[in-house]
Amino acid sequence: MKNVKNLKDGINGSDTTFINPCFGDPSNRNVNEGSFMTEKAFIKAGNNTFSPDSSITYIRAGPRLHTVLNPNKTVIAIVTSGGLCPGLNVVIRELVMSSWYNYGVRKIYGIKWGYEGILSDENWLELTPEKVNNIHKEGGTIIGTCRCEFNAKGIADNLISNGVNVFFSIGGDGTHRGLQCLANELDSRGVKITLCGIPKTIDNDIPLIDRSFGFETSIQEAVKVIEVANIECNSTKNGIGLVRVFGRSCGFIALEASKASRDVNICLIPESPFFLYGEKGLLKFIFNRLAVKNHCLIVVAEGSASAVQDLKISDTGLKDKSGNPILPDIGDVLKKEIKEYAKENNIEATLKYLDPTYIIRGCAPNSFDINYCA
Amino acid sequence: MKNVKNLKDGINGSDTTFINPCFGDPSNRNVNEGSFMTEKAFIKAGNNTFSPDSSITYIRAGPRLHTVLNPNKTVIAIVTSGGLCPGLNVVIRELVMSSWYNYGVRKIYGIKWGYEGILSDENWLELTPEKVNNIHKEGGTIIGTCRCEFNAKGIADNLISNGVNVFFSIGGDGTHRGLQCLANELDSRGVKITLCGIPKTIDNDIPLIDRSFGFETSIQEAVKVIEVANIECNSTKNGIGLVRVFGRSCGFIALEASKASRDVNICLIPESPFFLYGEKGLLKFIFNRLAVKNHCLIVVAEGSASAVQDLKISDTGLKDKSGNPILPDIGDVLKKEIKEYAKENNIEATLKYLDPTYIIRGCAPNSFDINYCA
Amino acid sequence: MKNVKNLKDGINGSDTTFINPCFGDPSNRNVNEGSFMTEKAFIKAGNNTFSPDSSITYIRAGPRLHTVLNPNKTVIAIVTSGGLCPGLNVVIRELVMSSWYNYGVRKIYGIKWGYEGILSDENWLELTPEKVNNIHKEGGTIIGTCRCEFNAKGIADNLISNGVNVFFSIGGDGTHRGLQCLANELDSRGVKITLCGIPKTIDNDIPLIDRSFGFETSIQEAVKVIEVANIECNSTKNGIGLVRVFGRSCGFIALEASKASRDVNICLIPESPFFLYGEKGLLKFIFNRLAVKNHCLIVVAEGSASAVQDLKISDTGLKDKSGNPILPDIGDVLKKEIKEYAKENNIEATLKYLDPTYIIRGCAPNSFDINYCA
Amino acid sequence: MKNVKNLKDGINGSDTTFINPCFGDPSNRNVNEGSFMTEKAFIKAGNNTFSPDSSITYIRAGPRLHTVLNPNKTVIAIVTSGGLCPGLNVVIRELVMSSWYNYGVRKIYGIKWGYEGILSDENWLELTPEKVNNIHKEGGTIIGTCRCEFNAKGIADNLISNGVNVFFSIGGDGTHRGLQCLANELDSRGVKITLCGIPKTIDNDIPLIDRSFGFETSIQEAVKVIEVANIECNSTKNGIGLVRVFGRSCGFIALEASKASRDVNICLIPESPFFLYGEKGLLKFIFNRLAVKNHCLIVVAEGSASAVQDLKISDTGLKDKSGNPILPDIGDVLKKEIKEYAKENNIEATLKYLDPTYIIRGCAPNSFDINYCA
Repeated sequence: MKNVKNLKDGINGSDTTFINPCFGDPSNRNVNEGSFMTEKAFIKAGNNTFSPDSSITYIRAGPRLHTVLNPNKTVIAIVTSGGLCPGLNVVIRELVMSSWYNYGVRKIYGIKWGYEGILSDENWLELTPEKVNNIHKEGGTIIGTCRCEFNAKGIADNLISNGVNVFFSIGGDGTHRGLQCLANELDSRGVKITLCGIPKTIDNDIPLIDRSFGFETSIQEAVKVIEVANIECNSTKNGIGLVRVFGRSCGFIALEASKASRDVNICLIPESPFFLYGEKGLLKFIFNRLAVKNHCLIVVAEGSASAVQDLKISDTGLKDKSGNPILPDIGDVLKKEIKEYAKENNIEATLKYLDPTYIIRGCAPNSFDINYCA
Repeated sequence: MKNVKNLKDGINGSDTTFINPCFGDPSNRNVNEGSFMTEKAFIKAGNNTFSPDSSITYIRAGPRLHTVLNPNKTVIAIVTSGGLCPGLNVVIRELVMSSWYNYGVRKIYGIKWGYEGILSDENWLELTPEKVNNIHKEGGTIIGTCRCEFNAKGIADNLISNGVNVFFSIGGDGTHRGLQCLANELDSRGVKITLCGIPKTIDNDIPLIDRSFGFETSIQEAVKVIEVANIECNSTKNGIGLVRVFGRSCGFIALEASKASRDVNICLIPESPFFLYGEKGLLKFIFNRLAVKNHCLIVVAEGSASAVQDLKISDTGLKDKSGNPILPDIGDVLKKEIKEYAKENNIEATLKYLDPTYIIRGCAPNSFDINYCA
Repeated sequence: MKNVKNLKDGINGSDTTFINPCFGDPSNRNVNEGSFMTEKAFIKAGNNTFSPDSSITYIRAGPRLHTVLNPNKTVIAIVTSGGLCPGLNVVIRELVMSSWYNYGVRKIYGIKWGYEGILSDENWLELTPEKVNNIHKEGGTIIGTCRCEFNAKGIADNLISNGVNVFFSIGGDGTHRGLQCLANELDSRGVKITLCGIPKTIDNDIPLIDRSFGFETSIQEAVKVIEVANIECNSTKNGIGLVRVFGRSCGFIALEASKASRDVNICLIPESPFFLYGEKGLLKFIFNRLAVKNHCLIVVAEGSASAVQDLKISDTGLKDKSGNPILPDIGDVLKKEIKEYAKENNIEATLKYLDPTYIIRGCAPNSFDINYCA
Repeated sequence: MKNVKNLKDGINGSDTTFINPCFGDPSNRNVNEGSFMTEKAFIKAGNNTFSPDSSITYIRAGPRLHTVLNPNKTVIAIVTSGGLCPGLNVVIRELVMSSWYNYGVRKIYGIKWGYEGILSDENWLELTPEKVNNIHKEGGTIIGTCRCEFNAKGIADNLISNGVNVFFSIGGDGTHRGLQCLANELDSRGVKITLCGIPKTIDNDIPLIDRSFGFETSIQEAVKVIEVANIECNSTKNGIGLVRVFGRSCGFIALEASKASRDVNICLIPESPFFLYGEKGLLKFIFNRLAVKNHCLIVVAEGSASAVQDLKISDTGLKDKSGNPILPDIGDVLKKEIKEYAKENNIEATLKYLDPTYIIRGCAPNSFDINYCA
């Protein structure tokens, strides 16, 4: 168990702490300092003595008996950054509600338009319970988001000048890289601001947790689209339904939505290599299925071109700025290859392509995600 | 009032009719022979005497006291043809239920895969109330559809050899052109088969009726997608939401969905000419709005390229087989032009493009359309 | 065609009118003064000459070329009254949006808590496009409603003291009776305020129109509940599903929802008399059906006790203040009688009773009703 | 770790096992015999050496390398019993699909109408992948259910005479008690039939698992009803919304739905004692809230009468067959008490009562539950 840097270490320049006002009498409910859980839930037979020291363990989350910050003097700022994700407004609402009612904080800023918005005072909105009361039923984020340059110095200046001492940033890996830059900037200035990054990813690609927020909602929406593709491909002879969903480097949405649909015949994800051509290739498999069942329903994660093992497709020769090969759009590739295969083999087949994109992320969170975010 | 060709004229080679078994005692409910309605509901002031003879009028629909066909000897065949439309299964179900229970017909075929399917006996499925009992809650068509060549001779052969004397064909304009060919073929053979074309169009582009079936459902689905675009474009600074919906030659879906959404700022339809460039052009208008409101939500019917008045866009030089100019995809055009305009004018704007396509037609019918189809 | 009292007659004490600012150049779109439509759309054969004078006709609605009120001096007040109905917020939004943008009115009050709320100034909220921009997606009414005493004098006082000259009241028959009292009160004072009653009824019981707003939404919600009852009664042997829906004096919701469900076996409405007991009675019919089909799905309008023809049920002896007999709750009656019949006849049957009440009216309007209200 | 009785012990009268055909090459995927997990995920600090022997542990589920039953000779029977629960059809479908495709079983019976149905051969339906292919999108159970007497002898007779050697029973605690009776009956006859009870409870009241199937769906539906109550009680002055949901002895549905709604002000559950009357009583609390906020939204689990601490309510004097006191309906109690309190204190308040009952369980499973059941 690694010793994690703790707020106590230095925030107040001393060991001053405050009784946590959260939950009335917290003595019954607070998390015991030092509680942890082990990385793996299953323990193999024979391994009857188990030492946490020899395993990765995680400190348990939850309110402690003492807090380091004085709620009366706390100024909170919140930004959302990167792509939308169902539940962003729930997280914002809960940060406001919990800070206000559980901790007694009275100064909470929601800053419009992500990191960039911090630089202009006009974007600093004061949030109150009244203002966020109904936002949990809405998709998107009431404080807007952006994909933008990260100006660590400017952000530090504005947080400091507005007296912020707790800063919440809700976003993806880019957002957290920004947060690290900001931490460095603040450290170099010797300024103590509590930085809290809340991981947001529609793709559910965070190893440590079961689900990222918004994921269940996006599955539910994706399943609806897959159902349409299922109806379309079953309504024509040799109908092929092809649905492309988000997932540049992982296939969780594609896989879970395929499973929940239970109608999908083929699910392609970046993690699972496959061939397009030849006897064991995807195209052969699709048309074999058509011959027997008259239809085929395919779901593909957008990043699946990287899983194609035939030289032909990955060999575009194009490279991005970092020198990584640029892969073609797997949806376009499949559309083209399927049509060509049908033509070459003189098979009448009807391809119906659906690309829901934002439809699965711009929606309001379902009850599961509201509960999960709150 | 034009004299419309009537089933009585010749089906039985005589004036034999049968008492309509529909509705128990039909004498109270049947439509009076000769009832009609006028083309226009509103009558201008001053025009106080109105003569139906001087206006277009329509014969009233509904069961008559006598029917020409003998239910005991009636063999019905049903096909669905062309693109999907919510409610197809409701129409099929009602044809079966009404023929079976109201008229006592016991031989009803549903033929798989549209006109083409008629040619193979394996596609002729017998439909019964039990088989169609729950299909009204499903999208698509249980008997499949196709876009295919129309073989009038082969179809006539197979209808005759299966003893069909009532043939229902549910489809669009192509389907009805096929039906006309079939009528000519049957006429030339002197064969009497009642042909009934049931108009199906997701686009609502039938002048004589208020709504085509499935239209309300597609509006409801389109509004959901527009709502996503609305959330996306409101969640980024200078967010532009662009939603393309069906409508090759008409903008009813785009317009009604825009109205029902009440969030759409610009709705482009083929019927309403517009300019892309210049002071009064669309691009200028979009970016003027961004400057004031920070977002802009646009819905465009797929055929709207024909409404663009600037030479530049329509002048692709490409022509289809019939010599008509091939228009570019309006979605692609707008995406490209908006991005270029932003770049040229050095404006940071984020475009979110959504193309729901089949999502608005492959779904189950809503209660309005079930009622309407039934 | 009866001469209807017109705003022109007296509002300004003269014939002063204003060019209607609605729709830019209204000369192309306004409704021709004197346009009308006839009561009946269908004209019987033989009746080839038709004189509007001999029929009931209705003046056509729509903006006229001239308006009587000066938009710059117009002060509008809006109240909602009686039970909720999907679409109330859409109507409020459109009144605000249209008054603001089409007519240029800048003083629009939404008054909280119905007629009663008018009496306290704290309930007078100024509405602007910004405030009502997103309310059309919400159920209920943002200005609240009430069932309350009608104080015509007090209301007149407060409307006058706030300078209101256009008053919109959205509600049912009680609301309109109140409006008539107010009209009399204002007349007696010689005060000219334009009173506009917008009929609201979830029950669709307005003879002159096809649908009242909110009706389609309530049907859609009712169908969902009926579907649950359908599943429940099909999942047990001799399952009886019984769904009670709104409709004290009319059965439109029960009937339309039953039709849209297409699973309902029996629909009971106040308009259609029936017997409970005996050979031709409802109970016999239900259990006959169980014997053949193992399930029976019944929808009943809440006021259907009045349609029961057996003496036993209507003879409670209770009378209300006006001396009308108080009828028992038809849901309770049916539950009790069905159970007793099963017991007496030694039949094992399972009754599942569902009473959705507000569920079908407290929801957000669907796209059909948003379009209809707007 | 207790030694659990295992199929190996005796089924075949020997140690004969079969290679598990599940998953192609199972050697890579099967669960290691003897894997287990500990009861508690969190381990307290200081407790750095942890011995599974001193804790409750559970054997890990999953396919093993060897199976005891010969798939070619396996005959499976499935019944569903007790109340409906979203996902029943998914479980049935997966039992059929997995037995058929993963294990190669070709004789699978679905028996209609629960335990009672087993007694009549007409209720034994053969299930195939084709028959269950689309049932996962439907609520209810295609094989019906019942609440009935348990005839262990008759059931044993019929299972044996139909050659069943694997029997799945999906149901609640009563269903499992029946299964235990059946196990005893079979033991006494020396007959070996694998009995598998699949726990089904809409209430989520199974300690060992996070969620019972159908629970998330019922929460999602309950939240919709709570939203209606929220709209109703916010639309009238002093509006009180009261929603009663399932939960005779536990409040998981009430609590989770209240949390997911985030609009609920009071949630009453059997587990949490409360007073109705007096200064700290519920009624006082409700009306205090009305005075400040004008509305109050309450969710109550149906069994919450047992949590009322005032003598008055629980003292009905009635006892059931087992001598337990019969508690009054908490919905009725609250309706009556709230109205009386309002009257006594001369406060105008409007109570809107909603009792969704089967609405939250008779629906189709959402994507979460489909995934969970499958």
